[in-house]
Amino acid sequence: MAVCSKCGGNGVYERRYSGEVLCANCFKASIVEKTRRTISRYGMVKFGERLGVAVSGGKDSLSLLKVLDGLNQDSRFQLVALTVDEGVRGYREESIAHASDLTRQLNIEHVVVSYEGLFGFSLDKALDWKDEREISSCSICGVFRRRAIDEAALKAKVNVVATAHNLDDYAQTFLMNLLHGDVERIGWLDPAYVDESFPVRRVKPFMEIYEEEVALYAYLSGIPFQSVSCPYMHEGLRGEVRDYLNEMEVKHPGMKNVLLKSSLSVVSRLSPAETGHHSVPCITCGKPSSGGTCNVCKMKEVVRQHVKYGE
Amino acid sequence: MAVCSKCGGNGVYERRYSGEVLCANCFKASIVEKTRRTISRYGMVKFGERLGVAVSGGKDSLSLLKVLDGLNQDSRFQLVALTVDEGVRGYREESIAHASDLTRQLNIEHVVVSYEGLFGFSLDKALDWKDEREISSCSICGVFRRRAIDEAALKAKVNVVATAHNLDDYAQTFLMNLLHGDVERIGWLDPAYVDESFPVRRVKPFMEIYEEEVALYAYLSGIPFQSVSCPYMHEGLRGEVRDYLNEMEVKHPGMKNVLLKSSLSVVSRLSPAETGHHSVPCITCGKPSSGGTCNVCKMKEVVRQHVKYGE
Repeated sequence: MAVCSKCGGNGVYERRYSGEVLCANCFKASIVEKTRRTISRYGMVKFGERLGVAVSGGKDSLSLLKVLDGLNQDSRFQLVALTVDEGVRGYREESIAHASDLTRQLNIEHVVVSYEGLFGFSLDKALDWKDEREISSCSICGVFRRRAIDEAALKAKVNVVATAHNLDDYAQTFLMNLLHGDVERIGWLDPAYVDESFPVRRVKPFMEIYEEEVALYAYLSGIPFQSVSCPYMHEGLRGEVRDYLNEMEVKHPGMKNVLLKSSLSVVSRLSPAETGHHSVPCITCGKPSSGGTCNVCKMKEVVRQHVKYGE
Repeated sequence: MAVCSKCGGNGVYERRYSGEVLCANCFKASIVEKTRRTISRYGMVKFGERLGVAVSGGKDSLSLLKVLDGLNQDSRFQLVALTVDEGVRGYREESIAHASDLTRQLNIEHVVVSYEGLFGFSLDKALDWKDEREISSCSICGVFRRRAIDEAALKAKVNVVATAHNLDDYAQTFLMNLLHGDVERIGWLDPAYVDESFPVRRVKPFMEIYEEEVALYAYLSGIPFQSVSCPYMHEGLRGEVRDYLNEMEVKHPGMKNVLLKSSLSVVSRLSPAETGHHSVPCITCGKPSSGGTCNVCKMKEVVRQHVKYGE
């Protein structure tokens, strides 16, 4: 490969959409700088705030924690790592260990919550149904994980939670919402999205960075790769949309970025009611809901009715 | 195949997104009825109006003419067929003959205009460049064809022009606009789109009908298929998007329809300035333009500079 376009060193990566060739150090620096610009552009974090980082222990979230720590050398904000232990035996132990290792190494406060502690059952237990399921494992888990991150955020008293969603996740979600006819849900992609009745904001500092660049950052930074995948993973439409966007990006470099711009352009045309979500207390547990009983209480009831007897 | 869900006759088509099985007659009637509903839903044609139908002579536009004629047995509006002869030797003669045959058979007024008559050169001549081209043939032809249809509409004194764009065209254009980052151009997909400074409206009565159903309608109605394709056709991104949407529709029947709904949902959120196009007179020819010199005058100049000398 050619030499680094910035320093003349050994090129390790060609950024196809820009034509740049970068060495390992200049590439890593570019990811940090891109993240800094995204945070600044959308005003994601304010001076002095406590910033929770949702760290599953996979390469994306570990990379985000490392990048944010690198950006915080002047302690402009206070970093806290938030980990949810869903309770998946033989899978989750490894990634939680990676999260613990990195937070210790970077000397970052680490708050861990578990499905077992919050809801009274692990994911293994919640998915151990006596009958066929019509709901996907990811749908069940997603409802609980969102609440668990909220709970971890409240426990850690943070002002804002950063998740490691990247440009690919963003473009996939946008296209999936359109293919589902859920235009109003595109409001969730608003970088300035707030739930006005919940005290913690959510931001996505990697939203302008390609999945493959996050992976390369992780590799070049010595961040450990998780050796096993979630045994319950079922991708469905997202996998199909991912494959399509990857093919399109190869044929038309920069297309995912264009799709991000289109999504932001659509978001900018939504009404404030669509981008600022107004939740109301769940009539059962009092936590935020869109009205009546919240999704978590509904899903707990579904799980309660279906898990195997006598266990 | 099973029997027709409507009349118990011999089923020839299974509509995957609805589960219906239809015989030839019930299928054809369903296309006419769907078109009637689309026209009614979006108020496309008013009582007593002169309705021009852009008829290239391909299966889609011949089908549209036949369906609209069938819907007009009570002469609620006056049908006029509008044909543009781009001037492509060995290709266009066949489809123009098909258009003439059907208009004669249905006793419909037929107005034909040509690039040669309107612009002074055929498409064959306009594309006969002495050097390599950076503009695709379809881009060049599209600029002239849009103007030619406008001219035919004015000549025929119609109030509204119907084109045979179908659900597939619509879904493809929507996705292509997003992949190009052209959110403001999505306004053109507004079924109620008007150019406030041009007296003729444009409507798409087949916008809710699948391409494959238009093709089957044509086949079952004895509408002739054109045996050759345009020699200049170059699909580029549209071909890729078409293939993708076709794959998605097979896996998830009804998805193109959902994408149409999403596009209309996005259109409904655009500002009036984005959906009502305001043109101003071209400083060269006085015809509608977005400002300064119109695209037709610009493209004529490009063609003039590049066509082979001495011919």
